[in-house]
Amino acid sequence: MIRFNCDYLEGAHPKILKRLMETNMEQTVGYGEDEYSIKAKEKIKDICGDKNLDVHFLVGGTQTNTTVISHALRPHQGVFAVETGHINCHETGAIEATGHKVIVLPGEDGKMQACEIKKYMDSYLIDPSFEHVVQPKMVYISQTTEVGSLYSKAEIESIRRVCDEFNLYLFLDGARLGYALETSANDMDIPFIAKNTDVFYIGGTKVGALFGEAVVISNDDLKKDFRYAIKQHGGMLAKGRLLGIQFLELFTDDLYFKISKNAIDMARLLKEGFENLGITFAETPASNQIFIILNNSFIEKLHTKFDFEYQYQVNDFETCVRFCTSWATTKENVETLLKFMKENI
Amino acid sequence: MIRFNCDYLEGAHPKILKRLMETNMEQTVGYGEDEYSIKAKEKIKDICGDKNLDVHFLVGGTQTNTTVISHALRPHQGVFAVETGHINCHETGAIEATGHKVIVLPGEDGKMQACEIKKYMDSYLIDPSFEHVVQPKMVYISQTTEVGSLYSKAEIESIRRVCDEFNLYLFLDGARLGYALETSANDMDIPFIAKNTDVFYIGGTKVGALFGEAVVISNDDLKKDFRYAIKQHGGMLAKGRLLGIQFLELFTDDLYFKISKNAIDMARLLKEGFENLGITFAETPASNQIFIILNNSFIEKLHTKFDFEYQYQVNDFETCVRFCTSWATTKENVETLLKFMKENI
Amino acid sequence: MIRFNCDYLEGAHPKILKRLMETNMEQTVGYGEDEYSIKAKEKIKDICGDKNLDVHFLVGGTQTNTTVISHALRPHQGVFAVETGHINCHETGAIEATGHKVIVLPGEDGKMQACEIKKYMDSYLIDPSFEHVVQPKMVYISQTTEVGSLYSKAEIESIRRVCDEFNLYLFLDGARLGYALETSANDMDIPFIAKNTDVFYIGGTKVGALFGEAVVISNDDLKKDFRYAIKQHGGMLAKGRLLGIQFLELFTDDLYFKISKNAIDMARLLKEGFENLGITFAETPASNQIFIILNNSFIEKLHTKFDFEYQYQVNDFETCVRFCTSWATTKENVETLLKFMKENI
Amino acid sequence: MIRFNCDYLEGAHPKILKRLMETNMEQTVGYGEDEYSIKAKEKIKDICGDKNLDVHFLVGGTQTNTTVISHALRPHQGVFAVETGHINCHETGAIEATGHKVIVLPGEDGKMQACEIKKYMDSYLIDPSFEHVVQPKMVYISQTTEVGSLYSKAEIESIRRVCDEFNLYLFLDGARLGYALETSANDMDIPFIAKNTDVFYIGGTKVGALFGEAVVISNDDLKKDFRYAIKQHGGMLAKGRLLGIQFLELFTDDLYFKISKNAIDMARLLKEGFENLGITFAETPASNQIFIILNNSFIEKLHTKFDFEYQYQVNDFETCVRFCTSWATTKENVETLLKFMKENI
Repeated sequence: MIRFNCDYLEGAHPKILKRLMETNMEQTVGYGEDEYSIKAKEKIKDICGDKNLDVHFLVGGTQTNTTVISHALRPHQGVFAVETGHINCHETGAIEATGHKVIVLPGEDGKMQACEIKKYMDSYLIDPSFEHVVQPKMVYISQTTEVGSLYSKAEIESIRRVCDEFNLYLFLDGARLGYALETSANDMDIPFIAKNTDVFYIGGTKVGALFGEAVVISNDDLKKDFRYAIKQHGGMLAKGRLLGIQFLELFTDDLYFKISKNAIDMARLLKEGFENLGITFAETPASNQIFIILNNSFIEKLHTKFDFEYQYQVNDFETCVRFCTSWATTKENVETLLKFMKENI
Repeated sequence: MIRFNCDYLEGAHPKILKRLMETNMEQTVGYGEDEYSIKAKEKIKDICGDKNLDVHFLVGGTQTNTTVISHALRPHQGVFAVETGHINCHETGAIEATGHKVIVLPGEDGKMQACEIKKYMDSYLIDPSFEHVVQPKMVYISQTTEVGSLYSKAEIESIRRVCDEFNLYLFLDGARLGYALETSANDMDIPFIAKNTDVFYIGGTKVGALFGEAVVISNDDLKKDFRYAIKQHGGMLAKGRLLGIQFLELFTDDLYFKISKNAIDMARLLKEGFENLGITFAETPASNQIFIILNNSFIEKLHTKFDFEYQYQVNDFETCVRFCTSWATTKENVETLLKFMKENI
Repeated sequence: MIRFNCDYLEGAHPKILKRLMETNMEQTVGYGEDEYSIKAKEKIKDICGDKNLDVHFLVGGTQTNTTVISHALRPHQGVFAVETGHINCHETGAIEATGHKVIVLPGEDGKMQACEIKKYMDSYLIDPSFEHVVQPKMVYISQTTEVGSLYSKAEIESIRRVCDEFNLYLFLDGARLGYALETSANDMDIPFIAKNTDVFYIGGTKVGALFGEAVVISNDDLKKDFRYAIKQHGGMLAKGRLLGIQFLELFTDDLYFKISKNAIDMARLLKEGFENLGITFAETPASNQIFIILNNSFIEKLHTKFDFEYQYQVNDFETCVRFCTSWATTKENVETLLKFMKENI
Repeated sequence: MIRFNCDYLEGAHPKILKRLMETNMEQTVGYGEDEYSIKAKEKIKDICGDKNLDVHFLVGGTQTNTTVISHALRPHQGVFAVETGHINCHETGAIEATGHKVIVLPGEDGKMQACEIKKYMDSYLIDPSFEHVVQPKMVYISQTTEVGSLYSKAEIESIRRVCDEFNLYLFLDGARLGYALETSANDMDIPFIAKNTDVFYIGGTKVGALFGEAVVISNDDLKKDFRYAIKQHGGMLAKGRLLGIQFLELFTDDLYFKISKNAIDMARLLKEGFENLGITFAETPASNQIFIILNNSFIEKLHTKFDFEYQYQVNDFETCVRFCTSWATTKENVETLLKFMKENI
C-alpha cells in the first residue's frame, strides 16, 4: 500500500533520528530547559530576525492551538476563524473546552478576509447589547490553510491592519509552514510572519520531525507566564530535549526548507498528472495538499493499491478526496500512482 | 417615554407581588425545598400531564440554558442551534464557557430544520475522522424563536424523530412559551412539549414574574443530580420560595395563559397598525415580537417619545428594530404609538 | 415551627417590598442600566467614600464569587481560601468549574492568616518547579467568616500588606457584611474595606433583601469588561431594577445598618441564654451565627418545635448545630426557644 | 555533571531507538490506528490477563491524568487525592482547569487510606446540604507514590472495597509502575492492578521510552468515546505509531521489567551508601526515589559535580533533596557519587 493520506505517514527525517541517537544517553535537565532547547530557540530567533521573541516547543498542533488561544483570551473573549479553520472543525472542540467561542467568519478559498473581520467588528461595536455577545480578541489563520491555499504578504498585512484597528491578536498556525514557504508562487518569509503576527508556530510534526511545534511569541502580553500554560495543557515534555534536538537539526543547513521543497516538487508532479488525466480539482492546488473529485468506483479501484483521505461526499457517485505529499514523498511513488490511474481511469 | 424594547420592562404581575407580600414574613427552608416550591412543582407536573417529570426553578434564561446544557453533555459533545439561537449569539459565550461547542445549523425563519440535523449527522457519521469533530448530542430550539416565529406540532415531531434516530436530546427554551401558546394560529400545548422533548423550560421572567424559569425534565438520564448543577451555576436561590410562590401564582386560575394572551392581542394591534402604515416587516410577525425596518430619521423622531430595540443596520439609511408587547402592554400605549407614527411618517 | 436555620428564612424587609410594589408598573430598561440601579450605585460609592469605584449588582453569593474570581484570574492562577471558606466547601465546586484551583491555607478561627500566605508564597517562589504549581493570584476572605468570626482592621491590613508584597488581589466576601459591621466589638467600616481590598461585595440576600449582592471594585484591572463576566455567569438580571431598587432602599435612612443591628442584638440574647444553660460553644460566638454542641436526644426534642442547622457529628452522642439570627428575628422567638430549652434540658 | 535529578534524564532505551530507526520510513496511518499500536495494545492486554480491556496511548503524564479524570467525571463531581498527589500539586491545576475539584484527603507515607475515604463519604452523605458540596466520584492513587512509597495488594483491595461501597472509580497513576513492580519487597503485579482499578496507566516516559503512557481501561462506562477525549486534550499523536512501537518494544522480552529492575538495584546501592554515611532520610526509601536531608553547604559542594532535585527547606541550614535512579543509571555513577560524598561530608 502506497499512502498519500497526509503529511505525517513516515517517522522523522533520517538526520533527526540520527541526532536523537547520538545524544540519546546524554543526561539533560527536563522540561525544555536543556542546552539543546536553548540553542534551538536561539536559532529560531535568528531565523525570525528578532532576538526579542520568545520561543517554546510543544508536542502537537491541537495542543499548541489550545495552549496559545486559552493563554491569550480572557473568559468572555473569542477567536475568529473561517469555517474550515482547524480549530473550528478538527480538534474535537478543544478551544471551546477551554471556554472560548470560535467565531466563524466567511472565508474565501479557505482564507480569512480582512474585510469580513472589519464588517463583523463594525456591527459588533454598534450593537448596544454588545456585552451579551462574545468579545472578539484574536484572529486565527493558518498558512497553508486547511484547503491548501496561501496568504500573500499583502493579505497578511490587510489582516494585521484590521487587527490593529480593533485591538485583536493575530495568531498564525504554521503546522504546514514549511510547505507554504517553499511554494514557488508564494512570497512569504518567516521574518515577515514574525513581524506581522502576535504569535505563530512553525510546524514540525508535518515537516520532518517525529513531532513538535515551535511557538514564536512577539507580543509581550502573551509572553508572560506562557510556560505555566504549556504545563497545564500537558505540553511540557519531560524530556524536553527531544524537541530541542529536532528543531536544532531542522534548522541546521536549511534542512527544514530543503525537505519542504521536496513536498512542493512532488505536489507539482501530482497536480500535472491529475491535470493530464482530466481530473476535477475541488480546490485550486497550491501547496502540498491536492483535493480532487473522483468517481466512487474509481476510488474503490485505487484503494486496492493506494491510500488517500476521504473529505466529503459530492453526490451519490462522486467523493472529494485529498492527496498529500511531504518531505518523504518519493518521485517513484508519485509515478506509480499516476501510471495506475492512467491505466484504470 | 413609552417603551416597547422588550417583554421585561415592568416588574411582576400585581397578583404575584401581592402573594409575595402576603407570605413575606413566613419562615421557610431555603434552596427550593419549601412548601411553595413543592406545590408549584406539582402544579406544573399536572399542567404537563405527567407526574413522572422533574421540575426545578432557576433565576434567569442564560443560567438555565447553561445549567441544562452543561449538565446534559459530556466534554466532547456539542449542541445544535440555529444561527439566531439565543445560546449562539446572546449569552456572551456562556455555553462555550462550560466547555461545549454550539454547532450552528442553517435555520429557516429562525427555526431548526429536521432535515438539516439529519444531513449533518449523516455526513458526520460517514467521516472516518469523526473523533476529531465534536460529537453532537443535543438539539436546542426555542418557542417562540428569537425572531418571533413558532414551531408547529408537526415540526417538533419531525425534529423529535431525527433526535431519536441519532440519539440526541431535544431541549426547548421556553423563555417566551406563554406567548407562543396564546398565538391563535399555533396549535401547541404544554403536554405535547413535555412529551416530545427531553427537557424544556417555562419562562417566567418575560411572562409576568419578577424573574424565574421552570425547568421540566422528562428524560431520566438528565434528572440525576440536577440540583448539584443548579447550585454550581449559581441558580439555587437561597430564598427559593420566591420562585415557588411566583410559579404557583402564575399557574393559579390560568394567569400565565391569560396574561400571555394580552401580549398577543396587543401585538396583533401593532401589526395591523404597521401594515396600515405600509411599514416593511423584517420577519413575518407571528407572536409578541415584531421586527420592522424603519428609516433612520424616522427612528430618531420616534425616539423622542418611544423606545424600542435596535437589531441591525439594513443599509446606510435604514435599520431593523424590534417592538415587543408583553403581559403588561396597554392598548392605550399601542394606540399612542400608532397615532404618533401616523402623524410623523 | 420557629426557625433559626439561617439568615434567609423570611422574604425581604417590608420597606423593600413596599418600594418594589410602588415602582412595579414603571417601565425601565433592563440589565442594570435603569435609573434605580444607577442611583443605588452612586449611593454605595458615597457610603464607600470613593467615587472612582465600580459597583455592580448580582443575584446571589455563589454567582458573585464565581464571577469575580474567574474574571480576575488567568487560567494558570488560583485563589487562596481557608478550609472553611465558602468557595472551598459550599459552592459545589463552582470556582473549579471555571478552571481555577482553590488553594487551601490553614486558618485560625475560620480566618485567613497573613503569615500563612507569606509562608506559602515564600516557599512557592523558591521552588525551581514553580511553573508546575498553580500561581497564587488572589486571597479570598469573608467578613463575617463561615464560623461567625470577624477580622479586625489590623488583621485586614496585615493581609493587605502581604497581598501587596506578592502582587495578589484581595477579595472580601461580604454576604454577611451588615452583621459584621454591627457587631459591637468590631471596629470595621465600609470605607476601610473599600480601601483595603481590590474587590468586595455587600450582601443583600442575608441582610434584608429578597436577593442581591453589590460588588464593589476598586482595582482598575478588575473593572474592565466586568459586565461581560456578569452576563456570561447568568448574573445580569433582565429586570435589573429589582436589584437597584432593593439596594437603594437598603441604603436609605441607614436601613441596612439598623436591621443588621437587630440580628446582633438577638444573637447576644441567644448567646447569653446558652451560657446560662451551660451549653458548649463550638466556636467563640461573635456575630449572628452561634455554633453549639448539643446532645442528640435533646436535638430531637428541640426539633418538635424549632429548626436549626446541622453542622457535623461531634461523636456518637453529640452534634454541632448552628443557630442564626437575622434582620427578622424577634425577641419573642428567642425567648420562646430559651424557655423551651430551659424546661427540657 | 552527573545527574540524579529524576528518572527522565536520558533519551530512550537503545532498543527502542533502534526499533524507531528500523521502522522510520514505513508509511502507517495516523492517530494510533496503525499496526504497531494495535499489536502493542494486544500485548498489553495479554500482560494484564484480560482481553476485554481497552488500551490507549498518550504522550505524557499530566495529559493522561487530565484526559482520564475529565472523561470520567460529570461537572459536579470531584476526585480524591492525597496532599502530595501529582494532580494536586504538580500539574499547574490541570485537573481544575477541566472544571473538577481535587478533594484532598490526609495520606500516610504519601498513600491514600481507605479509612479516610470512608470517613469522608460517611460524613458527606449524612450532610443535608450535600448538594452544595462537590460529589466525590473517583479515587486517584499512584504506584509508586510521589514520595516513593508503595501500596500493597491488601491496601489496594481495601481502597477497592470502599470504592465499591460508595460507587467511586479507582484510578491508578502508574508513571513509575515499572519501578514499583520491581521493588523486591512489593508483591504487586499488573493483572492485579487491572482487576482492582477502573482505569490505570503504565508509564513509559520515566521507564525507558522517549515518552508515552499506556492507559488501560476496564470499566465499560469509561471506555465509551475515550478517543474523543484523547483528541480534545491534544494526546492523539499524529504519528501514533511512535507510541505503539515504543510500547511494543518495552513489552518484548520483558524489557520493561528488566530495565526497571536496574533502577531498583541502583537505588538500593544509593540507599546503603547514604545509610553508611549516616545521612537522614526524609522518607523511608522504598523504590527508585530517595529523599534525604542535607546540610546546605554540603549541597553546594555536591552541586559542583552532581545534580539532584530540590524538594523543600527543612530549616535555615538544611534542605530536603531527591536522588532518583532509573533504567539508565550506572553503577559507576552511583559509586562516583558515594565516593565524593564520603570524601567531602
